Amino acid sequence: MAENWSFLDTSKPNFRPLVVIELAKGTKEETITWFTKRIVDKKGNGGAQLLVKPLLTEKGDENIYLVGASHLRLLLGAEAVGLVKECNDNSMRTFTYSSRKTFKDFADDNHNFLTMAECQYIIKHELENLRAKDETEIPGYPQAKLYPGKSIVRRLLTSGILVQIFPLHDREELKKLRHSWYGRVKVGYQPLDEIRCYFGETIALYFGFLEYFTFALVPMAVIGIPYYVFAWEDYDKYVMFATFNLLWSTVILEVWKRICAIMTYRWGTLLMKRQFEEPRPGFHGVLGINPVTGREEPVYSSIRRQIRIYLVSLPFVCLCLYFSLYVMMIYFDLEQWALDYHEENESNFSNLMLYVPSIIYAVVIEIMNRIYRYAAEFLTSWENHRLESSYQNHLVLKVLVFNFLNCFASLFYIAFVLFDMKLLRQSLATLLITSQILNQFAESLLPYWLQKRHKKRMKKRMCSVKTDMDMSLAEQVTLEKEMGAYFGTFDDYLELFLQFGYVSLFSCVYPLAAVFAVLNNITEIYSDALKMCRVYKRPFAEPTANIGVWQLAFETMSVISVVTNCMLIGMSPQVNALFPDSKMDLVLTVALVEHLLLAIKFIMAFVIPDKPRDIQIKLAKLEFESLEALKQQVRATGVYNSEK
Amino acid sequence: MAENWSFLDTSKPNFRPLVVIELAKGTKEETITWFTKRIVDKKGNGGAQLLVKPLLTEKGDENIYLVGASHLRLLLGAEAVGLVKECNDNSMRTFTYSSRKTFKDFADDNHNFLTMAECQYIIKHELENLRAKDETEIPGYPQAKLYPGKSIVRRLLTSGILVQIFPLHDREELKKLRHSWYGRVKVGYQPLDEIRCYFGETIALYFGFLEYFTFALVPMAVIGIPYYVFAWEDYDKYVMFATFNLLWSTVILEVWKRICAIMTYRWGTLLMKRQFEEPRPGFHGVLGINPVTGREEPVYSSIRRQIRIYLVSLPFVCLCLYFSLYVMMIYFDLEQWALDYHEENESNFSNLMLYVPSIIYAVVIEIMNRIYRYAAEFLTSWENHRLESSYQNHLVLKVLVFNFLNCFASLFYIAFVLFDMKLLRQSLATLLITSQILNQFAESLLPYWLQKRHKKRMKKRMCSVKTDMDMSLAEQVTLEKEMGAYFGTFDDYLELFLQFGYVSLFSCVYPLAAVFAVLNNITEIYSDALKMCRVYKRPFAEPTANIGVWQLAFETMSVISVVTNCMLIGMSPQVNALFPDSKMDLVLTVALVEHLLLAIKFIMAFVIPDKPRDIQIKLAKLEFESLEALKQQVRATGVYNSEK
Repeated sequence: MAENWSFLDTSKPNFRPLVVIELAKGTKEETITWFTKRIVDKKGNGGAQLLVKPLLTEKGDENIYLVGASHLRLLLGAEAVGLVKECNDNSMRTFTYSSRKTFKDFADDNHNFLTMAECQYIIKHELENLRAKDETEIPGYPQAKLYPGKSIVRRLLTSGILVQIFPLHDREELKKLRHSWYGRVKVGYQPLDEIRCYFGETIALYFGFLEYFTFALVPMAVIGIPYYVFAWEDYDKYVMFATFNLLWSTVILEVWKRICAIMTYRWGTLLMKRQFEEPRPGFHGVLGINPVTGREEPVYSSIRRQIRIYLVSLPFVCLCLYFSLYVMMIYFDLEQWALDYHEENESNFSNLMLYVPSIIYAVVIEIMNRIYRYAAEFLTSWENHRLESSYQNHLVLKVLVFNFLNCFASLFYIAFVLFDMKLLRQSLATLLITSQILNQFAESLLPYWLQKRHKKRMKKRMCSVKTDMDMSLAEQVTLEKEMGAYFGTFDDYLELFLQFGYVSLFSCVYPLAAVFAVLNNITEIYSDALKMCRVYKRPFAEPTANIGVWQLAFETMSVISVVTNCMLIGMSPQVNALFPDSKMDLVLTVALVEHLLLAIKFIMAFVIPDKPRDIQIKLAKLEFESLEALKQQVRATGVYNSEK
Repeated sequence: MAENWSFLDTSKPNFRPLVVIELAKGTKEETITWFTKRIVDKKGNGGAQLLVKPLLTEKGDENIYLVGASHLRLLLGAEAVGLVKECNDNSMRTFTYSSRKTFKDFADDNHNFLTMAECQYIIKHELENLRAKDETEIPGYPQAKLYPGKSIVRRLLTSGILVQIFPLHDREELKKLRHSWYGRVKVGYQPLDEIRCYFGETIALYFGFLEYFTFALVPMAVIGIPYYVFAWEDYDKYVMFATFNLLWSTVILEVWKRICAIMTYRWGTLLMKRQFEEPRPGFHGVLGINPVTGREEPVYSSIRRQIRIYLVSLPFVCLCLYFSLYVMMIYFDLEQWALDYHEENESNFSNLMLYVPSIIYAVVIEIMNRIYRYAAEFLTSWENHRLESSYQNHLVLKVLVFNFLNCFASLFYIAFVLFDMKLLRQSLATLLITSQILNQFAESLLPYWLQKRHKKRMKKRMCSVKTDMDMSLAEQVTLEKEMGAYFGTFDDYLELFLQFGYVSLFSCVYPLAAVFAVLNNITEIYSDALKMCRVYKRPFAEPTANIGVWQLAFETMSVISVVTNCMLIGMSPQVNALFPDSKMDLVLTVALVEHLLLAIKFIMAFVIPDKPRDIQIKLAKLEFESLEALKQQVRATGVYNSEK
């Protein structure tokens, strides 16, 4: 085995630092020696065959290492992670080293064939796949147990020896990206391909979705404006608006799938094969035999997990939901009090006071959402899921249910218990606008300001105020390692999801919501871009082919909004006036219209293909080729599956 | 290539006839020579390397050929079709010739390793994959054009030279199967594994589903009986029954998926890889380049197909639906007339007359369904779908929509326009029972009787009345080739689907429907078994892993039945009496309950895993193994994807 890797030279010609490893202060020397040896060691000896260099800082008391790799090593790594690249004939194919010449822009001396983000992703993958062989513990730390096959980096992380691993920014590239992204005032699309090259597919896809969603809301906003301007209150106009909204939201979600397929095909992630999932870092249990892999690894009984989920997490979530409803009732008391106050002493002040309970409630909702978020993360982590995907699903489910209720319960209550459409409109507006302002502030501007202050202080400490460009590597690393970590797109999608709820759930009552959403999203694009480029550490690229569970979440919301809008219209006095003497006709008509709309939605979702025709043909072509290749192999050797 | 197949001897030691090929009378000699040569020719020369023997009948004027294959050839064929078999370690794996020793019950002299149905499936696959090389026409028939890669057998079939290909019955096996299936009176399960060995997975799965579905209906039937016996008319009891029904139907459909996974894992089809789909036999078009395969083949523009679908088929289906509704209105006129007649001259006769319109209508519905079926087949075939799967989907959709409306429109009309619950119950009972009787008669008993008569006449013509067992091969073939062809499980599933509709759509009105369904299904199992064993030609086995589009159809029906039942209950006078003064409360309560039930259904469908845990682990294990094997290959060679 080792022979095939022997041509990789571990000496360091033009070493380019890609990833930073920070070890805890005071890590034992033997541990550092062992760990760095494993990183540079040959594949045959169980190493990662990467390059490592300690970072020499001015103070020199920090254990920071820079990791890089030779060009050849990265190409072999690209094959190992199953990267998909464009070929000379414009088709997308899985990269293999042996077929490297057939790929577009490939040349042995072209070090830009792989983007920096791809290189960093490959290094992260190789580091995470450094596995213990016969070690039973990390040298120097007898309490940090290892077993054959355990990922060394994950154990180092969980035992606190490894503080963090993060990819370095490329200051020049970043400057270019910033300029084309938000550096100049322009009307146009975001440079999604460049974002993808720099930050990876997951983040580019989020910005793509944000941009698409904003454009998709424009028709709703445009149609919504005259309702506000001319104060249309006619029932038939609202019905028209609601119907348009409901069908439109189905169309935009279906079309997004197609656009997403086009983008991810171009990026290669649509074709990437799913890798076998390893246990997540936090997973623990007693050593046993994994029934799937047959390897020794921690095993945790699924029954105990089920007990934790159904006997602890579920009741806790229900309790939180109850608490949220309780807070909501307090809000209504406050609202009533403000109304009474306004009636008693009518003045400009008391008029303003009418909005105070809503604003307070909006702030409280935001705070509760954030606290609950931590609780949900703690609980889901305690449930001890083996796979990251299962952890994510349970977390998303918990958070979505709570946030949905927390944000929309009061609106449901006003609409379907109090039947107060005026209050509904007012609450909706206050909640939407307050939450948008809070979000923009808490998410981007506050961290940006903190980061700026911190940077200044750092620079002062370094006793020299330089521009960004001529900072030394040591300074850059010191600066970046203190930056906050970006925790993924979860919160950003959640924000969009709730916004979609505000826009669509009660769209027949408050058509102006779409206008606010569009305005918010335009600034959101810029503040999120700022956040990515200026505030946070560079995140590792994560290849992905779609927005995952969020597609389902948005679709569910659009189904729920059919129900709420139909009920709102069914309860409106105008509709009730149409059926003066027959309850039954009313029930039947409303139900019929609702189910008709739902049926149309499902038929539309079914009829609109998820992938455009040309992508479908390209995918079918690849599948056909691989089946043909398999057949050829069988014909040539009589075997396509080696002896087991 | 040819070298690997050269060890296959084409001489005929102990030739076992498996498949019968019947050519048209008067087929030219050169065609026969060419075709049989292609069948026996070496793989390297583009042949199928099978064995062929002409059947010598008494009259000798018929072109009937028997096809068989050597044991070795069948094993290589099993590898080509991707058969999955059980290994010595009880895991299921794709069979390969080189790893044959690791499979359970394998021995070089064990000719029962492959079942007869599997051997016949392999031969069918090999025959269909006989492809034209440089021939431009079938020798002797210049009008039957060929192009490189065109399946020869399909062209022979479409040009009428090849009358039919069918697998032979194994009279001994069949007798055993008949005995254990329906030969003795017993309480117990059907011998599904034996049915699968003899008839293949598709048919075994149908009988499995029929049996499962019957068992699943028993609780409904048991709960339904007291409603009839004690004539319970209380609203709350009906609500309880309806709620139970709705949740139960979700549970049974979810549990079926699990049972289906268990069965098809044991049979190996759960793991079988999908093969690349060839154009269906009836597909035609001008020769062009297929964008996927790059091969020359008939191409038909997708836009022209869309035009045919949306401008001809869709309007035609709508017209048929309109016609069906028109017939329904005539039925109501008749019903009214019978009622008037009954009121004028009250007698036993007039009392009986009350049921006549319903019975006539039920018969008319059945006739219309059958006529429409032919029209739908014609239209779908005319739409010229390239793939069999796409053809099937369009056909199923057309037939389901029409049959649903045709069978249930009158019931919907009675329930939601006439609000006549008594008439609804009566119509439901008449429709259900009449259609069941008609079906049993038309499907099994009539063909059985015809077949029996035909057999007798044949035997008389052969001038010797022998028992089944000592018939000569020639007699057996002559007899079987005249038997009707079994056209697949479509009609059988459709019947069950409509029955499920009768049981669940209005379950809160007529709880006794489940009882009739159970009784019908018990006899249905026996009459279908009889039909398979006695009436029809043996069908080719079709590997399948699930019941396909029918799962979706049944689930859709169960969603629709939630809606209808909730509306029925919402309209009942008892419920209306609960909300004497507020229309709004009624609307809201009914809508709330309905959506709650729907939500519970979706959550249940989501929470119950589709595959049992042990099957999941087995599948994950296989996936892990194949990923590991791929990795090993990469490490060993540095390549896993050959140069392109």
